[in-house]
Amino acid sequence: MDPTKIILLGATGSIGTSACACIRRFPERFRIVGMSACGNVDKLVMLAREFKPGAVCIGDSAKAAAAKNGLPKGVRVFEGESGLEELVNQTDFDVLCNALVGAVGLRATVAALKKNRRVALANKESLVIGGDYINALLRGGSGELVPVDSEHSAILQCLSGEERASVESIILTASGGPFRTLPLDKLKNVTPEDALNHPTWSMGRKITIDAATLVNKGFELIEAHHLFAIPYDRLRVVIHPQSVVHSMVEFHDGAVMAQMGVPDMELPIQFALSYPQRLPLAGKRLNLAQLRELTFFEPDFGRFPCLRLCIDAGKTGGTMPAALNAANEVAVQAFLDKAIPFDMIAELIRAACDGHKPVAVDGVEIVETVDRETREKTKKRLTVNS
Amino acid sequence: MDPTKIILLGATGSIGTSACACIRRFPERFRIVGMSACGNVDKLVMLAREFKPGAVCIGDSAKAAAAKNGLPKGVRVFEGESGLEELVNQTDFDVLCNALVGAVGLRATVAALKKNRRVALANKESLVIGGDYINALLRGGSGELVPVDSEHSAILQCLSGEERASVESIILTASGGPFRTLPLDKLKNVTPEDALNHPTWSMGRKITIDAATLVNKGFELIEAHHLFAIPYDRLRVVIHPQSVVHSMVEFHDGAVMAQMGVPDMELPIQFALSYPQRLPLAGKRLNLAQLRELTFFEPDFGRFPCLRLCIDAGKTGGTMPAALNAANEVAVQAFLDKAIPFDMIAELIRAACDGHKPVAVDGVEIVETVDRETREKTKKRLTVNS
Repeated sequence: MDPTKIILLGATGSIGTSACACIRRFPERFRIVGMSACGNVDKLVMLAREFKPGAVCIGDSAKAAAAKNGLPKGVRVFEGESGLEELVNQTDFDVLCNALVGAVGLRATVAALKKNRRVALANKESLVIGGDYINALLRGGSGELVPVDSEHSAILQCLSGEERASVESIILTASGGPFRTLPLDKLKNVTPEDALNHPTWSMGRKITIDAATLVNKGFELIEAHHLFAIPYDRLRVVIHPQSVVHSMVEFHDGAVMAQMGVPDMELPIQFALSYPQRLPLAGKRLNLAQLRELTFFEPDFGRFPCLRLCIDAGKTGGTMPAALNAANEVAVQAFLDKAIPFDMIAELIRAACDGHKPVAVDGVEIVETVDRETREKTKKRLTVNS
Repeated sequence: MDPTKIILLGATGSIGTSACACIRRFPERFRIVGMSACGNVDKLVMLAREFKPGAVCIGDSAKAAAAKNGLPKGVRVFEGESGLEELVNQTDFDVLCNALVGAVGLRATVAALKKNRRVALANKESLVIGGDYINALLRGGSGELVPVDSEHSAILQCLSGEERASVESIILTASGGPFRTLPLDKLKNVTPEDALNHPTWSMGRKITIDAATLVNKGFELIEAHHLFAIPYDRLRVVIHPQSVVHSMVEFHDGAVMAQMGVPDMELPIQFALSYPQRLPLAGKRLNLAQLRELTFFEPDFGRFPCLRLCIDAGKTGGTMPAALNAANEVAVQAFLDKAIPFDMIAELIRAACDGHKPVAVDGVEIVETVDRETREKTKKRLTVNS
């Protein structure tokens, strides 16, 4: 069997690094034909020397020139956000592993699906903001979307061999983040450092803040809605601080299938690349008797207003999740820059959603327009507030 | 689609009653063509009037004559242990639901497999004592064995859509029974009433005692070995007092699939009848946030010596598990009759195994010979001890 040709976008981030580790373990099975990084050019050069892709994309155009010297000869270099889409369009590949962060990931996902390829999707924003359009592409072509998120990978594994008609509900687990039990009066004063100290998962900075606000879980509900064609009233969240049960599917006979494991992204990444086959993965194994207990709680919508905002945006549909996402991206960056307090993230999201009149998502352009406009409005609100 | 024709052996017991409830819910899908009871003739007559099988078997021959008057006209009546096998041999059916208790169930299982039919197996002793022979029949024919035990049903569900080669281990959960935390010095004085008070599962008397000694879990390990062709060193037991996780399969990538649900036998019975399809089943649903915690412990082999005895007998193989089972059946009856203390069950099993020279299981006869001889020896030990 020829190796699966992979484009890896976001190669130098947390997911990208795990994807490289997986691909490195199976050189006969996987081959990287294209990769991208935004700012970490040195690491990209190093990876390009190791994996020898035919093409790379450097997100930060200012750094592209410097990188070219370090890259192996003959590597094609794309630049900037538009370069991501060009890389996908102009490279022969089987699987796009999209580990970009934020709305910028949408065009690459769409380009790969238009080429009827598999997308191993870690860029959850693609589906959050462009879900309706992506599903239209999936229905109209032979492309395929395989989730990389541990939750959605768990759900996919729970659905293995099952009839979709027998699914009663899908239950996403959430660690609850670092502020699950923090006294409420202290919640508004938490720092980026506090928020980046996630109890169970080691992830990138932006998604770790999203995990602390539960925006991440809200996005995952929207993702699950689109990935598994399940209405919101049959999607649930349960707080599970140990992050051992990665998610569950309840069937119409009352059986609940769960996928469990140690919290480690290598498994879902590998599974998305080799799906439906399971390749071996050595390493840590779950030992329940050693853990002794798994706990479960209802989510606290009062403490985490973003969760409800996300669910409501998902139910409203159309461009509403795109507006929410844009406000969130601006707010998270402002919080990381210490420009706003933690609880302002929810306020900025709420203001963006309140002010947005959603329309149908029939392509990338409308999403990008809403994204751009909402970013501008949210940045203006930041200026007014500071 | 014609209804599935079912023979239900042990129709008046705990599993039989649940099977009737399931069949009653799907009259278009299932039809009972034969049924049996041992002593509860009144209930059998009532069920025969409701389900109108063509044939019944009454295990206790002394009661057969009385029953005949109450049965609908034209029902064929078989009698005694041999009648079970005759019923299976002389009835046209699709699925044998074998809910008999004890070694007496083996011949019916074998007869059904020889007719290349599906056996929905609740009679775990069939597989414990006759596993090698049953597997030879399965390999040589087109019969099928679908487990009814909640644990093995869970494993079957976890294996759905998965490649067998990717299974790393199978983890059976055990509630630990009513004596999991009882001070050790009190364990020898427990009464049958104490033992029958199972914390999570409502089951028949014999199996409830087996659950208290963990013989039941040992049997389930032997069953799992035969059902899923997995060596003993890749079979594990974890104590899980809530009986919510019914069992798990660990794959070679570290993923652990678990099947969960409220402790209720109706689901696995229904699943065995309709497998691989899931039929709907209304009723209680698992609510993890309400339960709040699931706990897990290593099994205590010191407290429950029967577990190790079962594993050792399984590893030894051949007729050793048949000897163990015979001693256990005699010992459990003696304990229920208050003729021996609780800890004597393990002693009688140990003595039977120590005194047994195992041979290969190539048919029913050798198993029955070992069964009969071990019962006699164990009864003699009872007499000597009393």
